[in-house]
Amino acid sequence: MEQKHILLGHGSGGKLTHDLIEHIFLKHFGNPKLDKLGDSAVFEISGKRLAFTTDSFVVDPLFFPAANIGKLAIAGTVNDLAVAGAVPKYLSAAFILEEGLPIETLEKVVVAMAEEAKNANIQIVTGDTKVVDRGKCDKIFINTAGVGFVEEAFCNLDNASIKVGDKIIINGSIGDHGMAVMAARNQLNIQAPVQSDCASLNGLIQSLKAFAEHIHFMRDATRGGLATVASEICADKDFGVELYEDKIPVNTAVSGMCELLGFDPLYVANEGKVVLVVDGDQADEILEKIKQHQFGKQAAIIGEIVSGKAGRCMLQTSIGGHRVVGMLAGEQLPRIC
Amino acid sequence: MEQKHILLGHGSGGKLTHDLIEHIFLKHFGNPKLDKLGDSAVFEISGKRLAFTTDSFVVDPLFFPAANIGKLAIAGTVNDLAVAGAVPKYLSAAFILEEGLPIETLEKVVVAMAEEAKNANIQIVTGDTKVVDRGKCDKIFINTAGVGFVEEAFCNLDNASIKVGDKIIINGSIGDHGMAVMAARNQLNIQAPVQSDCASLNGLIQSLKAFAEHIHFMRDATRGGLATVASEICADKDFGVELYEDKIPVNTAVSGMCELLGFDPLYVANEGKVVLVVDGDQADEILEKIKQHQFGKQAAIIGEIVSGKAGRCMLQTSIGGHRVVGMLAGEQLPRIC
Repeated sequence: MEQKHILLGHGSGGKLTHDLIEHIFLKHFGNPKLDKLGDSAVFEISGKRLAFTTDSFVVDPLFFPAANIGKLAIAGTVNDLAVAGAVPKYLSAAFILEEGLPIETLEKVVVAMAEEAKNANIQIVTGDTKVVDRGKCDKIFINTAGVGFVEEAFCNLDNASIKVGDKIIINGSIGDHGMAVMAARNQLNIQAPVQSDCASLNGLIQSLKAFAEHIHFMRDATRGGLATVASEICADKDFGVELYEDKIPVNTAVSGMCELLGFDPLYVANEGKVVLVVDGDQADEILEKIKQHQFGKQAAIIGEIVSGKAGRCMLQTSIGGHRVVGMLAGEQLPRIC
Repeated sequence: MEQKHILLGHGSGGKLTHDLIEHIFLKHFGNPKLDKLGDSAVFEISGKRLAFTTDSFVVDPLFFPAANIGKLAIAGTVNDLAVAGAVPKYLSAAFILEEGLPIETLEKVVVAMAEEAKNANIQIVTGDTKVVDRGKCDKIFINTAGVGFVEEAFCNLDNASIKVGDKIIINGSIGDHGMAVMAARNQLNIQAPVQSDCASLNGLIQSLKAFAEHIHFMRDATRGGLATVASEICADKDFGVELYEDKIPVNTAVSGMCELLGFDPLYVANEGKVVLVVDGDQADEILEKIKQHQFGKQAAIIGEIVSGKAGRCMLQTSIGGHRVVGMLAGEQLPRIC
């Protein structure tokens, strides 16, 4: 490790996070299941494949346009299971609470979790509560872990099955979550009509079951944004990724806010967006199916897998040029989820 | 809820924690699996029963005699699975790190986790890392969730099978963990030879498989101590619990420290102690078996299930009197795990 101390960037989901995972976590914990670094670990029991995942949520502020830490804690873990091709079933919920937190605030968060659990058709079956003294955490931190059953249909969901000619689809606009949280932060007095896209995507993903064998990769584009996922798709591969800037949906308020604040929407976190890599000849049909879902109305084919640019992700800009897209290098927006 | 704000006692594992669970968590999340409030949730898949549990660790300080937050985070979750009669298999590990934390400190904790994972014969298969700005958490918080397979042998592991005449066994001395953490806290300049009992108990519990059908209840006596577990055994039941004070193992250094500081060892947290309720006529044999294990050398039969004292836990004191033992009411030692 180059750094001697933890930086905010180590939690960005980008390059520094990858460094930390490689040099500390994989170094000591390494095993074949963990080494895959999927959104979920997958293991077999009695002939069924089970997916297992975990996520902690430290978003600041707790409440922001269209969602809050509670909804996020359910949707985030549900999505990590869903993109592994699993039907999410059971979640755990562990709370770290700050002494002095109004119980009313906790209850609002818990109600939001219960509602989103219902939306996502999962059950919270086990939990834990810790309280730390005032000033030793920030109001509420939540961890959710989850288990689900991997659908047989998603048999080709494997990095290794991605090939030149595959198309890249996203189910809607990027950057909404990050800018909604940003707008809610007190220090910024922005009254932009931005709303978090926070949503459980298991329903949308399940609706693609008939096309499952043509889906080679799914990942929810959270921390690090679309750019980081696109970079991961081709990292260490003998193919490249080409994204078309003018095809990537960005809501006007989000692009305006990004411009104003100097953010690149490609790197801004989403909480209801899945990136899919699918067989090229099935892409249009899959896109149509996604568009039928409430969380897929703005879906688009935004890029493809290309030969000759091994390991590189390029953006074809709307003015006709090309620029290299890498993983998020530092940290744009700490505590976005 | 009587309280309007979160108190440290809401994380004690005692009465206030139970209030919070009942009035907030069960109220909104309630479902048959969660309502059981076991150490693990248990559900069936393909004819196999799976146990699933979660725990967050916020212990202060991170390092204390004979263990640290990393070892604790593995052993704690392993034990929650093991007392559900499960063989722990896979754990998740989610970190919340404070900006500025020395990476050397993180690595020490991670190495301890890897070592204890090896001891407990489990794999860490999925994880997450969040970083919060300086002053917004206290160095390192860890959440581990875990899954394991419930052993068929433990077929009578059910509160409902506890009956009058059953004996209560503990695998060793109480209070060691709580006093070790207390001794390590900087503000107390105590140089007592106390060591945390932190240990993964799945090996010990597995060694009892031949007696499994005679074991009606197991719980690790962590926050809230032995007293809280003993109270839970008979809560809302038509029988009582009687504990024999002079049979309960307490190490001299621990009892001395408790006396000095005004703690009752019955309420002090343990991290390597399991309380078992077993068939009375099998208790001696089970005790002998436990004593053969490295974590059971000081094991003892410390009480029994009695009639005529419905729902009450009584301590037969060493001077011949009786006193009622209730759940931990406030908070003795915040951030003990």
